Amino acid sequence: MQLGMIGLGRMGGNIVRRIVADGHTAVGYERKPKRIDELTAELGSVKFQGATELVDFVGKLQTPRVVWVMIPAGATGAVIDQLAEVLDPGDIIIDGGNSRYHEDIKRAEQLLPKGIHYVDIGTSGGVFGLTRGFCLMIGGEADQVKYLDPLLKSIAPGVAAAERTPGRTGEPSAAEQGYLHCGPAGAGHFVKMVHNGIEYGAMQAYAEGLNILHKANIGADHDAQFSAEETPLEHPEYYRYPIDIPEVTEVWRRGSVVASWLLDLTAGALYADPNLDSFDGRVSDSGEGRWTLDAAIDTGVPAPVLSAALFARFSSRGEALYADKALSAMRKSFGGHKELPGQ
Amino acid sequence: MQLGMIGLGRMGGNIVRRIVADGHTAVGYERKPKRIDELTAELGSVKFQGATELVDFVGKLQTPRVVWVMIPAGATGAVIDQLAEVLDPGDIIIDGGNSRYHEDIKRAEQLLPKGIHYVDIGTSGGVFGLTRGFCLMIGGEADQVKYLDPLLKSIAPGVAAAERTPGRTGEPSAAEQGYLHCGPAGAGHFVKMVHNGIEYGAMQAYAEGLNILHKANIGADHDAQFSAEETPLEHPEYYRYPIDIPEVTEVWRRGSVVASWLLDLTAGALYADPNLDSFDGRVSDSGEGRWTLDAAIDTGVPAPVLSAALFARFSSRGEALYADKALSAMRKSFGGHKELPGQ
Amino acid sequence: MQLGMIGLGRMGGNIVRRIVADGHTAVGYERKPKRIDELTAELGSVKFQGATELVDFVGKLQTPRVVWVMIPAGATGAVIDQLAEVLDPGDIIIDGGNSRYHEDIKRAEQLLPKGIHYVDIGTSGGVFGLTRGFCLMIGGEADQVKYLDPLLKSIAPGVAAAERTPGRTGEPSAAEQGYLHCGPAGAGHFVKMVHNGIEYGAMQAYAEGLNILHKANIGADHDAQFSAEETPLEHPEYYRYPIDIPEVTEVWRRGSVVASWLLDLTAGALYADPNLDSFDGRVSDSGEGRWTLDAAIDTGVPAPVLSAALFARFSSRGEALYADKALSAMRKSFGGHKELPGQ
Amino acid sequence: MQLGMIGLGRMGGNIVRRIVADGHTAVGYERKPKRIDELTAELGSVKFQGATELVDFVGKLQTPRVVWVMIPAGATGAVIDQLAEVLDPGDIIIDGGNSRYHEDIKRAEQLLPKGIHYVDIGTSGGVFGLTRGFCLMIGGEADQVKYLDPLLKSIAPGVAAAERTPGRTGEPSAAEQGYLHCGPAGAGHFVKMVHNGIEYGAMQAYAEGLNILHKANIGADHDAQFSAEETPLEHPEYYRYPIDIPEVTEVWRRGSVVASWLLDLTAGALYADPNLDSFDGRVSDSGEGRWTLDAAIDTGVPAPVLSAALFARFSSRGEALYADKALSAMRKSFGGHKELPGQ
Repeated sequence: MQLGMIGLGRMGGNIVRRIVADGHTAVGYERKPKRIDELTAELGSVKFQGATELVDFVGKLQTPRVVWVMIPAGATGAVIDQLAEVLDPGDIIIDGGNSRYHEDIKRAEQLLPKGIHYVDIGTSGGVFGLTRGFCLMIGGEADQVKYLDPLLKSIAPGVAAAERTPGRTGEPSAAEQGYLHCGPAGAGHFVKMVHNGIEYGAMQAYAEGLNILHKANIGADHDAQFSAEETPLEHPEYYRYPIDIPEVTEVWRRGSVVASWLLDLTAGALYADPNLDSFDGRVSDSGEGRWTLDAAIDTGVPAPVLSAALFARFSSRGEALYADKALSAMRKSFGGHKELPGQ
Repeated sequence: MQLGMIGLGRMGGNIVRRIVADGHTAVGYERKPKRIDELTAELGSVKFQGATELVDFVGKLQTPRVVWVMIPAGATGAVIDQLAEVLDPGDIIIDGGNSRYHEDIKRAEQLLPKGIHYVDIGTSGGVFGLTRGFCLMIGGEADQVKYLDPLLKSIAPGVAAAERTPGRTGEPSAAEQGYLHCGPAGAGHFVKMVHNGIEYGAMQAYAEGLNILHKANIGADHDAQFSAEETPLEHPEYYRYPIDIPEVTEVWRRGSVVASWLLDLTAGALYADPNLDSFDGRVSDSGEGRWTLDAAIDTGVPAPVLSAALFARFSSRGEALYADKALSAMRKSFGGHKELPGQ
Repeated sequence: MQLGMIGLGRMGGNIVRRIVADGHTAVGYERKPKRIDELTAELGSVKFQGATELVDFVGKLQTPRVVWVMIPAGATGAVIDQLAEVLDPGDIIIDGGNSRYHEDIKRAEQLLPKGIHYVDIGTSGGVFGLTRGFCLMIGGEADQVKYLDPLLKSIAPGVAAAERTPGRTGEPSAAEQGYLHCGPAGAGHFVKMVHNGIEYGAMQAYAEGLNILHKANIGADHDAQFSAEETPLEHPEYYRYPIDIPEVTEVWRRGSVVASWLLDLTAGALYADPNLDSFDGRVSDSGEGRWTLDAAIDTGVPAPVLSAALFARFSSRGEALYADKALSAMRKSFGGHKELPGQ
Repeated sequence: MQLGMIGLGRMGGNIVRRIVADGHTAVGYERKPKRIDELTAELGSVKFQGATELVDFVGKLQTPRVVWVMIPAGATGAVIDQLAEVLDPGDIIIDGGNSRYHEDIKRAEQLLPKGIHYVDIGTSGGVFGLTRGFCLMIGGEADQVKYLDPLLKSIAPGVAAAERTPGRTGEPSAAEQGYLHCGPAGAGHFVKMVHNGIEYGAMQAYAEGLNILHKANIGADHDAQFSAEETPLEHPEYYRYPIDIPEVTEVWRRGSVVASWLLDLTAGALYADPNLDSFDGRVSDSGEGRWTLDAAIDTGVPAPVLSAALFARFSSRGEALYADKALSAMRKSFGGHKELPGQ
């Protein structure tokens, strides 16, 4: 089967590599000829062709065309608009990026009168997707998703990537192979959005726990303090543990309840940089965490952990500063409290 | 009636002023003679005597002695131990500072065999207590609290400080006058502790709201961004309000649901320093917020707001840094994401 | 000056009463003739006229007409659309309800070509507004807001409603009188929205603190427990305080840092119903808390307290149930833990 | 090597099974003869002996004796006191249960004068520990922990249980095999405590995300609502996804960022009970989550996610009720709002 890929960055390139490795062919569109040349050299011109012009790209695709758009969310809309002008009825546009699912609903409606089908695929896997496979969360019409099945199966990790869930027997379902048709347009990005919301929450859970371990030795050289502005440590004898955090993350990887892929990565990062000195602690958020919270608010779902995780990222970037100043202003007003300088 | 006061700082001095103004007399103990001299000059030596030695101080008190200790929590224990050596059965020690109520329980038990009574008084009012009166939350034996009534009434704000609660008629209760016997030893500091926990939560509620107003104009010069690391503002047109925050806090003071004394103070602080430039945003916490949360945890009470308020203060002092670095490390590991520099 | 009021419910009726009491006149539109009759009887037909048909209502207004719409947010849009058909250029429509400010921006744009002006007024004050005055947060064009000044001044509480902020002297500003032009269309509802977000947070702070007081006696009859499913109370001796919560809320009203109008009301509610037996604990939320959080998310402002307060309301209505079941399912899976029955 | 095990419940029994399977021998103490008989029948009397009396148990152990106590935390102290009476200098007591690490510090000090060594081992693995191995977090003196190495290695999962962390080569460290000497007395339970705190946070992240999926279809039959007490869904068209949650948890197991052992279990639980009908949603907490939060408070570490996870469990058991009633009381007071009945 043939796949057209718009955007040959890390994600797009690796998806192409996976399908080609599994016997399919691909046509890639990308403005930077260097990426096309490299991929052609790597995969061979029988399996992979490139194009730097959209018309050329479209011309190289067999109908019904399958065009996977894998570019930053902010640029996706314009590209789909261009595609809508040059594709034919029956063709399929896939948005594999991180669009908000609201966009999917709108785009599917806009493309419908033209007979162009729209499929949204939330794609998880990051830099490890090439070898580990990509987890695919799919929204769109059932017939089109079924048509794409051979490609999806090649991109997904496959059932062997994890032990089968007890009770599941026989032919593995698509979900067991790592891809799932979640519902109509937008459902794929909706599920991917919630996935990322959970990701934020789980990451923050680890980060807070590690921070407590990081402070576990503060009682070691603790002297009683009598400042009215600071709380002295009541029991310094409880905090005299110089914990080896990289080793702790390693030991948790085997047999513990918190074993996870995130923990595997954390153990790796801490092994490479035991004090995390290469980081400043400014944590970006790329949309899905916010949208997950918007969805929680809309649907009346309590999401204290997902929101706390998002707000921790905001705070890491200094966004609480004005609020903190307001607190200090109040404290000074009612109690004459002065701010203490940082250590 | 006569009161002995240990510690003539802002709080202790103002309590002395209030009782003297109401016809009582006071003896003050303080190591710094300057404070004693000033207070004697202010109040007159008929109404106020000072002492720089504990034995001298105790000697000047009529029995049963009433000794109010008003010094930083960390120093209170040692002073009470000294008092226990020199006081007589029937005397009363009051801890009016910010001791943890656990200490009260222990101290009351230790003093019991000596016949010395222990009363803990959580005192709220800050720098305004002199004119506004102090709100007193009291723990101890009923007879002793009753005995102290004339002093407590003079220190408290009095019923006129607020409109009477609908339905309450006749002779105002002690609570209506601003002081309350909350229960046995520790009950005063327990209620004061929860008071401060609420204070932290309410302060943070205002601070977060003001921060949103502070950001209400970020759409004014917003250009679309296509970075995969940052979430572009989807609707910049919704955030084009250059809000005058000092005026907003002022308007809320009259007729709104969020009118409060904290808001009065916030409006004052913002009038004096409209951009809060005199603050760095490092917010101290002085124990009660932590202890309130400890109590919530012990008693199984969900306290998401009180905890969030406390943690915001921790974060304001940079205590989330290690956790934030861990998040960045994870993001780099799974997605190749780099930290973005601060603006 | 004359005001047209659409909706003579509690809020609309009381605004009419306040302006009439201050020398203005009003025309009211309301489908229920009973309300019109009652208000006419109360205020006199010189000061107040009613109409049950929109055309009749509009005909009774002097131009430029001032029409204040004070009906549930969900119904406001349709009424404004009808008004747009029958009003003239130069007329002013005020939305004094709880519309989302997004709507204001849209409506102001839609009315602009017709020459009709749109003013949004976030109105706080609730059932006490009649006597206490309403706090008014106003968005719209400067000329129109200025034109409305006499009416706004009559509706607002006036400067005497609170002590003046230290430093503020001379002629009181509008904000000091309880009304404020916050910015262009939507600014009024934006500021009111944030006001309500703060309100949710402050309410929750009190509620959590009171809940801790409510549990302060759980150590009184506590026996050690050895169940692996439950955490025994480590120090029952710390939780033996049968706190009189109505009295505590009363004592905090005078001299304490947490004194506020919300506390006044809480003390009143607890005096009337000391154990809150008349409530089930299902807490509604009416939009502004959610929208405040949406704004925090959009602008990148950490709002852990405001979100926690909102989610507590969701949880109070049982919306966490599915999540809780999922937790129990996980606990059973990894630890064989069974759910314990409720007491 | 020989291990004495006190408590042959699920955990203790499986630890015995693992060491016996790896060539060691065990002596078990348990009051219920049935468990002893069963284990003897299963393991053979050469490898396993049982005792129902402590003196008999101790007599069967070779010196220096190694006694692992694996019983509910509440009962551990008394058993260790009894052991202290009958053991000899040089013997080792292991607390493998869920004691608070404060206890470990105290016990190690108490046993020191008798020459008895104390080792605390936080043990994770639950019902799967027999086959998956137990993750062991160890506190105590270095010599004793080293002495125990052969047993610990047999109980732990072994390096093959997970892929090695990139960069780690050569002889696997103890941590890579699933056990780690974390520091002096208490360090093992400290690290296990934080592990469980993280576990609570990660579980809650999944639970909240699944709850959003659970509500993803609420727009399907949504009618506009005009109640002032309820927020109508602004965009019902965004919530028309009848998500198959069991399949979503399955698809996330392979290739996604949130893949974890907890997710594996969740997928299993949802496969067995797709609507979680067998659960009531009352979620217990067994101490470690509370203690982790206590540690965060003591050390000044912001832990918004870990606290939110704990409070969600409290709320699931109805502990927010009084606070919720207080909110309803306030709403009624200021706005005349009535509680809406549950659906």
